[in-house]
Amino acid sequence: MPALSIVPKTELDRVRGADVAADHRLGILADACRLNALVAVKRAGSGHLGSTFSAMDIVAFLLFEELNTAAVGWDSPDRDVYFSSKGHDVPGLYAALHALGVVPPERLARLRRLGGLDGHPDVGVPGIEANSGSLGMGVSKGRGIAWAKRHLGRGGRVVVMVGDGELQEGQNYEGLQAAAHERLSGLTVVVDRNELQSDKPTEEIASVGELEERFRAFGWHSTSCDGHSFADLRATFGAIREVDDRPQAVVARTIKGKGVSFMEHPAALRTGGGTYRWHAGAPDDENFERAFAEIAGRLDERVQAAGLEPLSREPLEIEQNAAAGSLVGEPESGAGAPMSRVTDDYVVDAYGDELVRLGAEREDLVVLDADLASDCRVRAFELAYPDRFVECGIAEQDMVSTAAGLARNGLLPVVNSFASFLASRANEQIYNQASERTRVIYALHYAGLIPAGPGKSHQSIRDVSLLAALPDLTIVQPGAAEETRQALRWAVEQAEESVAIRLAIGPSPRRIELEGELHVGRGRVVRPGSDGALLAYGPVLLHEALLASERLAAKSVSLAVVNMPWLNRFDPTWLEEIAAYAHVLVVEDHAPVGALGDALRRELGRELTVFGVEGWPACGTPAEALAAHGLDGSSLAVRIESVLGR
Amino acid sequence: MPALSIVPKTELDRVRGADVAADHRLGILADACRLNALVAVKRAGSGHLGSTFSAMDIVAFLLFEELNTAAVGWDSPDRDVYFSSKGHDVPGLYAALHALGVVPPERLARLRRLGGLDGHPDVGVPGIEANSGSLGMGVSKGRGIAWAKRHLGRGGRVVVMVGDGELQEGQNYEGLQAAAHERLSGLTVVVDRNELQSDKPTEEIASVGELEERFRAFGWHSTSCDGHSFADLRATFGAIREVDDRPQAVVARTIKGKGVSFMEHPAALRTGGGTYRWHAGAPDDENFERAFAEIAGRLDERVQAAGLEPLSREPLEIEQNAAAGSLVGEPESGAGAPMSRVTDDYVVDAYGDELVRLGAEREDLVVLDADLASDCRVRAFELAYPDRFVECGIAEQDMVSTAAGLARNGLLPVVNSFASFLASRANEQIYNQASERTRVIYALHYAGLIPAGPGKSHQSIRDVSLLAALPDLTIVQPGAAEETRQALRWAVEQAEESVAIRLAIGPSPRRIELEGELHVGRGRVVRPGSDGALLAYGPVLLHEALLASERLAAKSVSLAVVNMPWLNRFDPTWLEEIAAYAHVLVVEDHAPVGALGDALRRELGRELTVFGVEGWPACGTPAEALAAHGLDGSSLAVRIESVLGR
Repeated sequence: MPALSIVPKTELDRVRGADVAADHRLGILADACRLNALVAVKRAGSGHLGSTFSAMDIVAFLLFEELNTAAVGWDSPDRDVYFSSKGHDVPGLYAALHALGVVPPERLARLRRLGGLDGHPDVGVPGIEANSGSLGMGVSKGRGIAWAKRHLGRGGRVVVMVGDGELQEGQNYEGLQAAAHERLSGLTVVVDRNELQSDKPTEEIASVGELEERFRAFGWHSTSCDGHSFADLRATFGAIREVDDRPQAVVARTIKGKGVSFMEHPAALRTGGGTYRWHAGAPDDENFERAFAEIAGRLDERVQAAGLEPLSREPLEIEQNAAAGSLVGEPESGAGAPMSRVTDDYVVDAYGDELVRLGAEREDLVVLDADLASDCRVRAFELAYPDRFVECGIAEQDMVSTAAGLARNGLLPVVNSFASFLASRANEQIYNQASERTRVIYALHYAGLIPAGPGKSHQSIRDVSLLAALPDLTIVQPGAAEETRQALRWAVEQAEESVAIRLAIGPSPRRIELEGELHVGRGRVVRPGSDGALLAYGPVLLHEALLASERLAAKSVSLAVVNMPWLNRFDPTWLEEIAAYAHVLVVEDHAPVGALGDALRRELGRELTVFGVEGWPACGTPAEALAAHGLDGSSLAVRIESVLGR
Repeated sequence: MPALSIVPKTELDRVRGADVAADHRLGILADACRLNALVAVKRAGSGHLGSTFSAMDIVAFLLFEELNTAAVGWDSPDRDVYFSSKGHDVPGLYAALHALGVVPPERLARLRRLGGLDGHPDVGVPGIEANSGSLGMGVSKGRGIAWAKRHLGRGGRVVVMVGDGELQEGQNYEGLQAAAHERLSGLTVVVDRNELQSDKPTEEIASVGELEERFRAFGWHSTSCDGHSFADLRATFGAIREVDDRPQAVVARTIKGKGVSFMEHPAALRTGGGTYRWHAGAPDDENFERAFAEIAGRLDERVQAAGLEPLSREPLEIEQNAAAGSLVGEPESGAGAPMSRVTDDYVVDAYGDELVRLGAEREDLVVLDADLASDCRVRAFELAYPDRFVECGIAEQDMVSTAAGLARNGLLPVVNSFASFLASRANEQIYNQASERTRVIYALHYAGLIPAGPGKSHQSIRDVSLLAALPDLTIVQPGAAEETRQALRWAVEQAEESVAIRLAIGPSPRRIELEGELHVGRGRVVRPGSDGALLAYGPVLLHEALLASERLAAKSVSLAVVNMPWLNRFDPTWLEEIAAYAHVLVVEDHAPVGALGDALRRELGRELTVFGVEGWPACGTPAEALAAHGLDGSSLAVRIESVLGR
């Protein structure tokens, strides 16, 4: 990690108070925020720079000039409300809030860390007006806030940033329709029209057409502007202030990655051979240095051109026990730092690879994607069998109902998205599909607590519970790459009902060695033991369970660790084997409600000890999040010892 | 019930084969289908006549003339596919399928009965191409089917009927966008543009604007026609056959209730003082006779005008043990006919009434509705406090996120919809709202198995499981009117987190007498007993539990019945009281997964017996559905006796 430094608030105060042309001031502030956001993302190790940068000039214009919030105060009921519905761009917003003194630098230094700043917006952070990151909810929320302001006779307007890719989500149109019906003139939507979504052009994934026309068809005042021209933004927002009979949409044309030449999208798309690589993730050291130098250099030039003294920078350091109080120290290494050991045994890679193999064997296999083809490792399938790949855009409900239609015609659809979105937003559609007695395979990626950096919108700790009461659906989560291949093959070739496969998206902390074949409803002993059995599933918590067992062995506690990938189907013989243990304990990569523990209680009819993700999932590093929930190996060992009465 | 008769298939065959002008033939067939649908709905005691009649001419045109399905056969892979996304209009479709010989008359006689025809479309019925009734999924499903046809090189086109009110659902726009992006010219959407939704004009609830423009803004070929003119339909469908580069929308202008003068909408709306009363429900005897006479009279005239012999009719009778085999006889009276005893103790009425009272006391109370204001009994609140009533249209996701925005501004939103839609379709939005640590009250109407006539799209047997793993949400289901008032008042005045209140929508089969106050986490003994405790919640299954206990008393089994309205919160003292029973049994108005039984197993750490709705919820009368799941009092008594080892 290179030395990291940011432009401190004091320096930004100097710029804000300087007697220079407004556009110069905004240009400096926006670039300083770009710099600080870049550093925060580098420090965090992940984050979304592409849309942070495309939205940055708009955010700077709104927060430093257009909106009254900084002036009237963040608690004023009459304040203007700004938030981003997509939420990916939050590093830039944090940087702006830091400049305004709302977010302290020690929190900026803890982006995506426990007690720091959530990876997606959370109202627990000062200045954040709405939890977002689950796409498509912002227009509706903005509608609610604007309605409340009007109803309560409060001042202030509401401005919601949405992504153009995000406009593929159906909920947007419900919100647009309702706000127009109510003539909510206090509501403005600004579209960050950067023409790219995860890693491909919106036009290629699922065209959103002429956006201005769409807004008009839904009864909105609709206009467009250059999202990187402060003059144009100023004129546009000035003009819409006159609109008093309907909400207003501003389609702001932007460049994804704006401000760092090699991240700017027409060029970056060409370099990437048609895919854009700067949507998510921190740049490596070399690219970080290049980006930093470019922004810092331009910043220096702008400051100089404005006749100001050069901006100094300060190191960005993590205080281990910062004033926030809720910060916990980094857990000790070894048992407490589960993700530090990383293997090449990625379950999601095995999934993607096996899918291609199955595609070669079966012509009825069709893969559906909702703009997460890279994350879900289905791009290889897309390239191999483009005529059996259905891209749905960011529209999970449509994806599932489309799969239902395909399945009714004898095809076998494999539906992909993050577990938190697919099991939840498309839940009724999954129920409807299953009720037609067809077979669909749902790949629930990013299942469980880890990675915990993106925060609660992305962490999926409810998905099993959301599917558990659905008749005719098997839920399975493989613990290792080889088991993933087996589970997928079973789902495709042998299962007689729909199957949900939960998949960890990150690296597997260790290779889980599994002997024998995968049998429906049977777990496999990963580490033998006689004092009790600890059941776990998925690579992350299997690793922690093994760590716990290893720790306990040193204390002469012999705890078996059993990999139990089947979360709602049980083989009676296996149940007998498990029932023979004096103690049965379950560790869930899920809330303690509605998953393996509950299902086993139903089957075994005896008391079990269940450790799960209690409360809201913690945002932080894997080690921080696991420790916060007492699910790291060390904590588990202590908790298990207590249960066993040792 | 008056004597019921339908026009038999043989007579309709005569019309179909007659050498008369196409429009005359279609007019006769459409009216005969109207007549038969009216009779089937009257026989069933419920159903949706308004949109059955508005869509009837379109359905007749499509099935009897335009589509190839009857000619190539309902199993042909090259068949044209027609289905209705809204599904309310299915009685008319059944009548048409009966005319085509696909649905036998004995099933038509068993509309909304076990083993008969589901209240909303289900692919288990011949000729039904998609399960629907959960609004807004049809465009996506049609997209899937059209994609499959193109991919597989099959013939046939896909025509999906959608309601204009239904177009408020966001998923439609996901489907429109995707189908346009894929240039699926084999897909046609026909809008039954009757300008009314549940009981009010679409323009009043949430305007869908200029529909043709909307479709065009989403890249569709868009046109309109008179949905009651066969000539216009013929010309329009002829013209769109030429469109080969995009999907096509036909906005068919119709009259809700068309064909029965007093149900036709501009007039019926005036008669109803602004609300339309023929959307759902069977007419009473007098209105049935009037409607029947009007259609039959016109039919006679049309037949005569066409120079055909008069159409004879046949009685429509239920065969108790029809050939279908899966039919069960009606349960014996008394214990087996739970809904025959009906009280004035409606929980939903108490809910609506108490809401108005609370509205008078608290200015922060805001009620949100998704076009079910009458069913959810919030119309009185709307009339009393129109400025605190937010109508969202059929857009549950928008409703929940809007509520989140209101709550962030200090208001207390009470969100209303059917449990099956609200807990499921808006699940991710509820999670997001709760994650902002605000308070929202969710009224989950129509919770549980009963009424079972509308079928599985409406029966909510998963909603508790869908909310159970959500931190900071209490789930409660009152068992009686007075308890409903107490629970709602508690939720408004005392709860510190969001609350989901499950409400039965139908009549309470008996008044449940409850002594003392409602305490969080404590159940109340409704009937004492010493051999065991049977826990139940909600009026429907409390009644069955009492019946079971009464039956068992005759066999000297002393079974306590405990009303336990709290489904995920437990008072430790109460748990101790329950733990003292030798046997604890739970009967769920829910699937046996994810509700009270699972929660109690977690708390009590012992084996429980749980009776719940296993598998897909049965469609039928209350008695049929309860018996089908072994949840009627008699069946429960037998099952409990077996568990107790008597």
